[in-house]
Amino acid sequence: MSVPYNTLKLVHLGIDTQKEHVVFIRKDCYICKSEGFEALNRVLITVKGKSLIATLYIITDGILKPGKAGISESAWYNLNAKDDDEISFSHVQPVISMRSIRAKMYGKKLNYEAFQNIIDDIVKGQYSNIEIAAFITACGGDNLSIHEIIGLTKAMVNSGKKLSWRKKIVVDKHCVGGLPGNRTTPIVVAIIAEFGLTIPKTSSRAITSPAGTADTLETMTEVNLSIKEIQKVVEKQNGCFVWGGSIKLSPADDILIRVERALDVDGEGQMIASVLSKKSAAGSTHVVIDIPIGKTAKVRTEEDAEKLKYYFNVVGKAIGIEVKVLFTDGSQPIGRGIGPSLEAMDVLSVLRNEKNAPQDLRNKALYLAANIIDLVHSKPHENGLDIAEKILSSGQAYEKFMAICKAQGGFKEPEYAIYKMEIHAEKSGIVIEIDNRKLAKIAKLAGAPHDRKAGVFLQTPLNTKVNKGDLLFCIYAETEGELKYAIEYMKSEPDIILIESVS
Amino acid sequence: MSVPYNTLKLVHLGIDTQKEHVVFIRKDCYICKSEGFEALNRVLITVKGKSLIATLYIITDGILKPGKAGISESAWYNLNAKDDDEISFSHVQPVISMRSIRAKMYGKKLNYEAFQNIIDDIVKGQYSNIEIAAFITACGGDNLSIHEIIGLTKAMVNSGKKLSWRKKIVVDKHCVGGLPGNRTTPIVVAIIAEFGLTIPKTSSRAITSPAGTADTLETMTEVNLSIKEIQKVVEKQNGCFVWGGSIKLSPADDILIRVERALDVDGEGQMIASVLSKKSAAGSTHVVIDIPIGKTAKVRTEEDAEKLKYYFNVVGKAIGIEVKVLFTDGSQPIGRGIGPSLEAMDVLSVLRNEKNAPQDLRNKALYLAANIIDLVHSKPHENGLDIAEKILSSGQAYEKFMAICKAQGGFKEPEYAIYKMEIHAEKSGIVIEIDNRKLAKIAKLAGAPHDRKAGVFLQTPLNTKVNKGDLLFCIYAETEGELKYAIEYMKSEPDIILIESVS
Repeated sequence: MSVPYNTLKLVHLGIDTQKEHVVFIRKDCYICKSEGFEALNRVLITVKGKSLIATLYIITDGILKPGKAGISESAWYNLNAKDDDEISFSHVQPVISMRSIRAKMYGKKLNYEAFQNIIDDIVKGQYSNIEIAAFITACGGDNLSIHEIIGLTKAMVNSGKKLSWRKKIVVDKHCVGGLPGNRTTPIVVAIIAEFGLTIPKTSSRAITSPAGTADTLETMTEVNLSIKEIQKVVEKQNGCFVWGGSIKLSPADDILIRVERALDVDGEGQMIASVLSKKSAAGSTHVVIDIPIGKTAKVRTEEDAEKLKYYFNVVGKAIGIEVKVLFTDGSQPIGRGIGPSLEAMDVLSVLRNEKNAPQDLRNKALYLAANIIDLVHSKPHENGLDIAEKILSSGQAYEKFMAICKAQGGFKEPEYAIYKMEIHAEKSGIVIEIDNRKLAKIAKLAGAPHDRKAGVFLQTPLNTKVNKGDLLFCIYAETEGELKYAIEYMKSEPDIILIESVS
Repeated sequence: MSVPYNTLKLVHLGIDTQKEHVVFIRKDCYICKSEGFEALNRVLITVKGKSLIATLYIITDGILKPGKAGISESAWYNLNAKDDDEISFSHVQPVISMRSIRAKMYGKKLNYEAFQNIIDDIVKGQYSNIEIAAFITACGGDNLSIHEIIGLTKAMVNSGKKLSWRKKIVVDKHCVGGLPGNRTTPIVVAIIAEFGLTIPKTSSRAITSPAGTADTLETMTEVNLSIKEIQKVVEKQNGCFVWGGSIKLSPADDILIRVERALDVDGEGQMIASVLSKKSAAGSTHVVIDIPIGKTAKVRTEEDAEKLKYYFNVVGKAIGIEVKVLFTDGSQPIGRGIGPSLEAMDVLSVLRNEKNAPQDLRNKALYLAANIIDLVHSKPHENGLDIAEKILSSGQAYEKFMAICKAQGGFKEPEYAIYKMEIHAEKSGIVIEIDNRKLAKIAKLAGAPHDRKAGVFLQTPLNTKVNKGDLLFCIYAETEGELKYAIEYMKSEPDIILIESVS
């Protein structure tokens, strides 16, 4: 049905439209005239035999010469485009799976096949951001039944690659977001792998935060591994900690999350499907889910947490995963570092059993590891927490951590950035409030996560007693300009760390 | 709460992002680093004291020099920007009215105030396209109660300007879309104005079609009038036919329609609110709504039409408008011309009572005019249709049409484009099918609506008996290239006009 009706030559514009495929053409070219200007039109573009659907943006000034077209970075990368490649245009028929979304708007229940068609189209890049937003909204809130959540989860699993393992039991852990500096993953993986269970852990990079787990790990080892390399590492060491983005498990998830975040919506069903589809695709059989509950965490009340727990258990069972849900304290951040290298230092000081290691991080990692062990280890006279504690305290966990790093390509020590600013207490008293969002913003302005060594190192957690002049936190940056910039912002925001005088 | 944290200099890139405000900055500048790259981030941009929220796109190649930033055409126009203007950036807090949309996703009912906040934010440009998509989806389908539709309609009316008239009765008509070439408006306005009723008609331009009513009228007179000018014309002539876009009645409507069209969704509640808010803002007291019912029309069954009729009546009453809903035949297009000038010729031939005037257009215009007259004219022994017929046949409607044109700035005769291609029947028989979408596409490829004289003129409506070699339709274009291009497409699509041999 689609007829190519024009050809232009590509030129690289270098416009990153944040994953939305966009094609830029001149106002005076035929495609414009035939498609209309103001309808958010989508066209099928083809370069060297490969096609995708792109949104049409019009160039009215001189940045495109006659006969030329540009495409966004996402499309450029996807089509493996080069300057002067021919690009042709076809009219695009409405995406058929959008019909299910319209049906959902009218309150119809969607079955597995409907979800599979939608998710496949999303992964293929057939949906524009506004169409994805419509999908998220139609299935948002509590609009999905438990059967629909199961259908969506299965569809997401089947849209990408799957890992398989020779072991009967494959474990994993997941934290339902919302806590800065919560870097338990490397510690938990080391303990569990040392204990002898298979734990092929994949993590994400930061999207809006100053560091993701993958960013943190990357300051110490290689995290960008192929599926083959991952399988080698896990066969040898029982566990790994790699970036999930390089292997395409549940690829729809990243696309949906980006739009969910922009809309600031996080429907229950989609969250369950997001977490469990990644675990299923990774081949997990037993998963511990950590739900921190707190005022500034994602889940705010025990009631909400109970509902999620129910969904995790039922959907997990339907797709063959045994899930154990833990409720934890989400009232304050965990660890002291904010930024990839600084968080890595926290992790290492726990693994090395250093005196001043952050105890909150240590305890949380032990708690999670213990629960994983208890979930699969059915020896009643042995206690998961004792086992985990012994593995960590003895230095075995540290050795396992180093062994995994070596298997992934080697270990390197994380470093401090060279530019540094110390912030001292202006009065004596007790730390009664810490604005985590503002500390995170300072870390980002200082360069994190892009500059791995940049960030904020907090010396005084909640309830610390400080004297006037004591060090509260340090800002680290890799350039003088960024340090200055972070300081400028900090000075404009009073009471990032609130100290109450003791009378 | 928002702190400006950087300043760059503007450069004009001329990128038309189809109304979405976008700001383009270099990957290596601070704003990028602090906001994160992949979160569809929005920032508050300020130029010469005026601010708006824009989506952040990143430039990785050389089209921006260090220290420079670009903005999309919509933002450039909105901020009255010039090259080298300073642009500053602030962090933007989430738009508060989005909370109501999230509540709606959870099934809560929204009151008038909630809708007013949402609509005001949309008109102010605070919503990105994906946020608008979320609003449309959450309120789409049959998700709005009658009270919510009334709230939304009132909010839309109050978001823009309102016209007021000294007359007690102000009439209008509206067609619930879906039929090409349906240019009854100029004829109806002329009849009604001549009859003595006040009919201040505003119309829209084409978005995806080859011509809107405003485009058609523009080939004969000036349609871009200010509110003051409109009031002058109507005071003198009882009626007008102007472009609605130049006066800001229900400004949210155009923004919503653009995204609805891209999603191909058209929720009942939003449609009612869209139509009636425009009428209320225009000061109408009595409105005739034409709902064409047919396979390729917007409304496909009488059942759907009945539901809309109920909504139109109840919501109309709530905002002080008496509505009369008509069901008409939506099975085939009306008139012969497709494209602004060619449609104008149809209108003129009806007004001039020419022998070969398209009778379907004449009859439909008379029917609508008659219903408007009957709605407000309570003399039982007089019949609206007789009155309308008399005004049209006598040439009074034509005279009134010319008088309104003169009042709006003068009349000019629509013209044919100079390049022309005739398409003849390849066999004898009866026309049993016309592919209206493809004819519309040919008209657009030939240059319509941008080239006013371009388009398609159909000679043989459904059921016409044709002989081999008879003229089926003409393609008109203002340039040779466009004509060639339209012909190329036409040749690739067989059976645009399907002829069945008579045996």
